[in-house]
Amino acid sequence: MRRDFSRDDTSAQDFYRLLTATVVPRPIAWVSSRSAAGADNLAPHSFFTVASVHPPIIAFTSVGRKDTLRNIEETGEFVVNFAPEQLFEQINATGTNFAREVSEFDAAGLTREPSRTVAVPRVFESPVALECTLHLVQPVGDCFVVFGEVTHAALAEEVLDGTHPLMERLKPLSRLGRDEWGTTGAVQRIKRIPVDEWPGHFRG
Amino acid sequence: MRRDFSRDDTSAQDFYRLLTATVVPRPIAWVSSRSAAGADNLAPHSFFTVASVHPPIIAFTSVGRKDTLRNIEETGEFVVNFAPEQLFEQINATGTNFAREVSEFDAAGLTREPSRTVAVPRVFESPVALECTLHLVQPVGDCFVVFGEVTHAALAEEVLDGTHPLMERLKPLSRLGRDEWGTTGAVQRIKRIPVDEWPGHFRG
Repeated sequence: MRRDFSRDDTSAQDFYRLLTATVVPRPIAWVSSRSAAGADNLAPHSFFTVASVHPPIIAFTSVGRKDTLRNIEETGEFVVNFAPEQLFEQINATGTNFAREVSEFDAAGLTREPSRTVAVPRVFESPVALECTLHLVQPVGDCFVVFGEVTHAALAEEVLDGTHPLMERLKPLSRLGRDEWGTTGAVQRIKRIPVDEWPGHFRG
Repeated sequence: MRRDFSRDDTSAQDFYRLLTATVVPRPIAWVSSRSAAGADNLAPHSFFTVASVHPPIIAFTSVGRKDTLRNIEETGEFVVNFAPEQLFEQINATGTNFAREVSEFDAAGLTREPSRTVAVPRVFESPVALECTLHLVQPVGDCFVVFGEVTHAALAEEVLDGTHPLMERLKPLSRLGRDEWGTTGAVQRIKRIPVDEWPGHFRG
C-alpha cells in the first residue's frame, strides 16, 4: 500500500522534508571560499554531485543566497573539502550561521592549507581537496546551483592505495533526513552486466 | 602528506575515477521514463541531488545522450524511484545497455505501477516514487543535467512512521567508487548550533 503526498495537500516544508529524507544518502561538499574582503568561509552543503566527466565539473546547490555563494560570485573560486567521520563535530560547527566576517576555520579550530591552483585555502585536516573555478551559477526555483570545474585534486597519502582512494580509509559522512547523518556500512561489489552476456531474449 | 593530481598530468579517465571515488556516498535515482513510441525505460543514475526547495526540483546528470534523456526530452516526464538494498541485483541489471525498444522493467522482472500525475509508470517494488515533469536540461561539459519538478510523491506505508520515512526501513543503497555499492551504517544525530548559542567570541 502507498501513501500519496500530493503537492496540493502537502505544505512546502513537509514536501521538502520528504525530499531530504528520500534523496539519501547525500555526500557532503565542505566548501571553502573567500570573500573579496579576504574572509575565509567554510560550510557544509549536502546537495552535491558530479555534473560533467570531461572537463571534470561538480555542482552543489545553495539554498538561497548565503556567504558561500556570494564569495564564489566575487572571486570565481572555491574548494570542495571531503567530509570524513572523524571531523563530524567540526563539520556541523561550520554549519552555524556566523556573521560574514567571522571565519569558520577559526571558529571550528581548523587549519588553513594553501591550495595549488586557487587563492582559497583548503582544510588541512580533510583528506581530499577538490580545487575549483566557477563554471556557472544556475538559478533553479528558490535556489542556485553552483557548477565548478575541478582544476586540481589533492589527497592525503594515508587514504590512498596506489592512486586509488579507499572507502574504508576515507570513511565518508553523509546527510540523511532531519538531523540525521550517516556513516557507510558494508560495501558490496557488482559489475554492470554487458548486454551480450545477458541471459535470454532481452539482448535486443 | 598530500599527493597532488594535477589536471595536466592526470588522464581524463583517471581524474573521473578520482571524482567518483571521492564524491561519495552518492544516492541513486532509479529513473523510469517512456519513449514517444511507448517503450518504458528504467536506469540507475548516481549523479543525483536536490536543486530547489520551492518548488521542489531534483536533478540528475546524464553522462552523454542515453535513452533516459531522449525519452524525457520527448515526453517531458519521468519518475525517480528509490533504490533500496533488497533490489540491489535488479537495480544493477537495469544498468545494462539494452536496445532502446527493450524495457528494463521486463528484462529485470519488475512490475509497472501507474503513476498519479505522469504517464510514465513507477516501480511497484520500490518504496518511494517521485513523479516529475521536466524543468530544464542544462548541457554541462560532455554531460546533461536534467532538472525535474516533483509533482507527486508516493511512499510505501511500511517505510513510514507517521508521515516520516525511516532510514532503517528505507535501507538506501548508494554508489561509491569503481564497482562499489554502499549500504548505510550507523546513523548519528546532531543539531546545527545556533550562532547565539556558540561559545566564546565568534558570535560576530
